[in-house]
Amino acid sequence: MKLTIYNTLSRKKEVFVPLHAPNVGMYVCGPTVYGDGHLGHARPAITFDILFRFLIHLGYKVRYVRNITDVGHLENDADSGEDKIAKKARLDQLEPMEVVQYYVNRYHKAMEMLNVLPPSIEPHASGHIMEQIEFVQKILDNGFAYESEGSVYFDVEKYNKTYNYGKLSGRNVEEMLESTRNLDGQSDKRRSVDFALWKKASPEHIMRWKAPWSQGFPGWHMECSAMGTKYLGAEFDIHGGGMDLMFPHHECEIAQSTAALGKETVKYWMHNNMITINGQKMGKSLGNFITLEEFFTGNHPLLTQAFSPMTVRFFILQAQYRSTVDFSSEALQASEKGLSRLMEGYTRLLKLTSAATSTEETAGLREKCEEAM
Amino acid sequence: MKLTIYNTLSRKKEVFVPLHAPNVGMYVCGPTVYGDGHLGHARPAITFDILFRFLIHLGYKVRYVRNITDVGHLENDADSGEDKIAKKARLDQLEPMEVVQYYVNRYHKAMEMLNVLPPSIEPHASGHIMEQIEFVQKILDNGFAYESEGSVYFDVEKYNKTYNYGKLSGRNVEEMLESTRNLDGQSDKRRSVDFALWKKASPEHIMRWKAPWSQGFPGWHMECSAMGTKYLGAEFDIHGGGMDLMFPHHECEIAQSTAALGKETVKYWMHNNMITINGQKMGKSLGNFITLEEFFTGNHPLLTQAFSPMTVRFFILQAQYRSTVDFSSEALQASEKGLSRLMEGYTRLLKLTSAATSTEETAGLREKCEEAM
Repeated sequence: MKLTIYNTLSRKKEVFVPLHAPNVGMYVCGPTVYGDGHLGHARPAITFDILFRFLIHLGYKVRYVRNITDVGHLENDADSGEDKIAKKARLDQLEPMEVVQYYVNRYHKAMEMLNVLPPSIEPHASGHIMEQIEFVQKILDNGFAYESEGSVYFDVEKYNKTYNYGKLSGRNVEEMLESTRNLDGQSDKRRSVDFALWKKASPEHIMRWKAPWSQGFPGWHMECSAMGTKYLGAEFDIHGGGMDLMFPHHECEIAQSTAALGKETVKYWMHNNMITINGQKMGKSLGNFITLEEFFTGNHPLLTQAFSPMTVRFFILQAQYRSTVDFSSEALQASEKGLSRLMEGYTRLLKLTSAATSTEETAGLREKCEEAM
Repeated sequence: MKLTIYNTLSRKKEVFVPLHAPNVGMYVCGPTVYGDGHLGHARPAITFDILFRFLIHLGYKVRYVRNITDVGHLENDADSGEDKIAKKARLDQLEPMEVVQYYVNRYHKAMEMLNVLPPSIEPHASGHIMEQIEFVQKILDNGFAYESEGSVYFDVEKYNKTYNYGKLSGRNVEEMLESTRNLDGQSDKRRSVDFALWKKASPEHIMRWKAPWSQGFPGWHMECSAMGTKYLGAEFDIHGGGMDLMFPHHECEIAQSTAALGKETVKYWMHNNMITINGQKMGKSLGNFITLEEFFTGNHPLLTQAFSPMTVRFFILQAQYRSTVDFSSEALQASEKGLSRLMEGYTRLLKLTSAATSTEETAGLREKCEEAM
């Protein structure tokens, strides 16, 4: 049977043809571990868990890489501000890696409760600094980056002369470049559209490593380019993540990988849509999130009751993954009932099958179901 | 109250005085993740879990680091042979980090079942290659190592002129040096007593990183020196591990850290004794082990029944941690009964306490108990 995937890059549904069947390489952006997982973290994990399981069901040997971001993700997702992990560590008077370990453990526990299979490899950004430095060096060697006061920035204008910056997100790079005036010494980068590949650490910044350019840390986007290609090769099949990561994160990742390796790294880009509350994206940085633990205990003012992990999973799966899901306690209650009905139906079906003498009709149903995927 | 610790280094019981009370730094050697955890892995985890919990109970703020060895641990614990992880990956046709992830997940699951608290930080050796390269460089700069054909070896003879190689394990280094003839080109190291800090990778070796000396990988002992001091500082309180690690692993770790930093790194060395079967150490490399899962399911020819994780924990804790424990199904059955009696007694005690009007006697018991620790 054929699997059809909506490719964000082509904006079309495409028949899935792996680069090296029966092997499939899949990379999905995991959490930045400075707080408890919430509903917005559950959605990509569950979405790509379903894809992971379905690919295995189809007979593929899948290497599924989902990263842990534990360094380089600065406040506001931009090139300035404090590192999210380091800030949490400062507030809690802990070593940053204690913060990381604590939230990684809790994330794993929540994923297990949601019946999300662990990925094949779960690399940490902080554990791949060398690989990231080598990747930055390649981009510098190829002329698509420049060093400035110990930091290294990606030269978007230069890259865009050969390749297409904005191809994934559909942003108009000409407009972005035109609207970007010279930064007049307010920043060490040439244009605000440029992004950091390596940042020189300020004196108070404790998460730092030695690179040819400075004692510093990698830019946020760099880890995915370096770790994706390390474990899946210079070209791999699927890259997934939340739609909010499309720009700048995935756009920058494409630019980095293309600038370093001279070719497209990812064949199929897939993005799940957001969970909203009253129409606004649910996110830690927005402060309007409900943690998974709060769902499981019911301990949140917006929740009328506790919801089982399987209800949360079913709630997320009831919507097509590219549609938004608006959260409400009522919607979850409806999911709870729906799941209960589904399980009753499934139990009845099991009894039916064992009583039937012909399997022809159920086999037809299976085909129909697989076609619909 | 005072905590007394038997320090392997001094061979004496010493009163525990932390370097920076109320903070306590503790490092314990974790598993090499190329197979399922067995009873021999459970013992250090449970032993130091008890210590971790007791230190917290005493009011200390404990940073507990337990590493994951996922690179550099060669067959036979020596400087030659294949990397244990890489060999398993080759046999299973997997990326080495897939092997690591699989067994780390299973180790975590087993530890959770044994009610072992996760450590504060669980660093991976492969995630700290830069730190290890810098550590090797320090030892080279201080003149206690030499480069040979792309590998770097620790110069035991030179080190021993200033410091004392053998102080932990009690081995006589003079004898070791005397009995070590020149290796006559059979190896690239000067004396067989020298050990690898960095190994040049052979062409077929896939786990490799770029260092000033070669594309290669760190020696097995290096990770603990680099990660212990990174997360706990150049001097920290407690280093634990199994007694089988005392030589060469911990002896080499002391030599490395002293050679790089010019001082003793660890104040209290603690070693748990081995689990034996018919008087022989239980170990994966010896092939006579019973995995934890086999205990929990009873699925092993030497087991007459399944044993609950709490029975296994109790079995291990019934012996003083510096004594050997000889495994037998009968001994575990006795532990099962003992645990059941203990829990009955505890339940009875809870009822007694709530009925008593004076707490004087129970308070005395508590003090006695703490004194005995």
